[in-house]
Amino acid sequence: MKQADLAKVEEANAEFYAAFENGDLDRMSAVWADGPHAPNVGCVHPGWPLLRGREEVLRSWALIMANTPYIQFVLTDLHTVVYGDQALVTCSENIITVDDSADAPGGLAGGSIVATNLFLRVEGRWRLLHHHGSPVLNQAEDDEE
Amino acid sequence: MKQADLAKVEEANAEFYAAFENGDLDRMSAVWADGPHAPNVGCVHPGWPLLRGREEVLRSWALIMANTPYIQFVLTDLHTVVYGDQALVTCSENIITVDDSADAPGGLAGGSIVATNLFLRVEGRWRLLHHHGSPVLNQAEDDEE
Repeated sequence: MKQADLAKVEEANAEFYAAFENGDLDRMSAVWADGPHAPNVGCVHPGWPLLRGREEVLRSWALIMANTPYIQFVLTDLHTVVYGDQALVTCSENIITVDDSADAPGGLAGGSIVATNLFLRVEGRWRLLHHHGSPVLNQAEDDEE
Repeated sequence: MKQADLAKVEEANAEFYAAFENGDLDRMSAVWADGPHAPNVGCVHPGWPLLRGREEVLRSWALIMANTPYIQFVLTDLHTVVYGDQALVTCSENIITVDDSADAPGGLAGGSIVATNLFLRVEGRWRLLHHHGSPVLNQAEDDEE
């Protein structure tokens, strides 16, 4: 595995989260695979069923970003493997967002999501084919053990 | 994409769930990638953080299978793509299991998990490198819409 490949995959992964943080649908659209790969694009938002196809996935991001006034990611446990023109990135998304619940309107809230991100190299560029994010439950209990 | 490849990947995917249904750790061990790929093996059980490495992943399966008296999977929404020696399978795991809660001891319970399974072809055999399963929440609400 070449270090240059690893670095480029991790750049593409960082761009995915930067696009979300900035609520930038153009950047988000550029992150995801297109053309012949569009029908195989897939995305699982935490707690959601799978969304299939580039169009449906980008529509969900437009909706989510429109409803997220503030979000910031600190990625930990980043692990990247490259197999030819495919790359698998896993990471923990440590999230800071705005808590608009009745208890703390406008306050900051947090959470932890574990993510599986699968990239394809298409014409020299790493594009996101598949994202699966899921909530880590009972983390507090685990920490106590 | 060759139909023969697709069929073999889907066989490997079915064998993963059959191993679990049968509580057979030897079959489960044969499903997962080994040798040089062992450190890159990864598994997210629903609600759990990522487990990394073949040994840790198989230890979790031994524990889960020992604590699962009965489980059956009906897989739906199966989608498979093969890219060279990598293959991505997504599916919905519709689960029937035994509910040992106080409300219904010994009764049957169900649930829906969305799964991302990434396979590698190693010496002609498709082996599971990465599994990510997560609960689908608020499905009832979605159905009402």
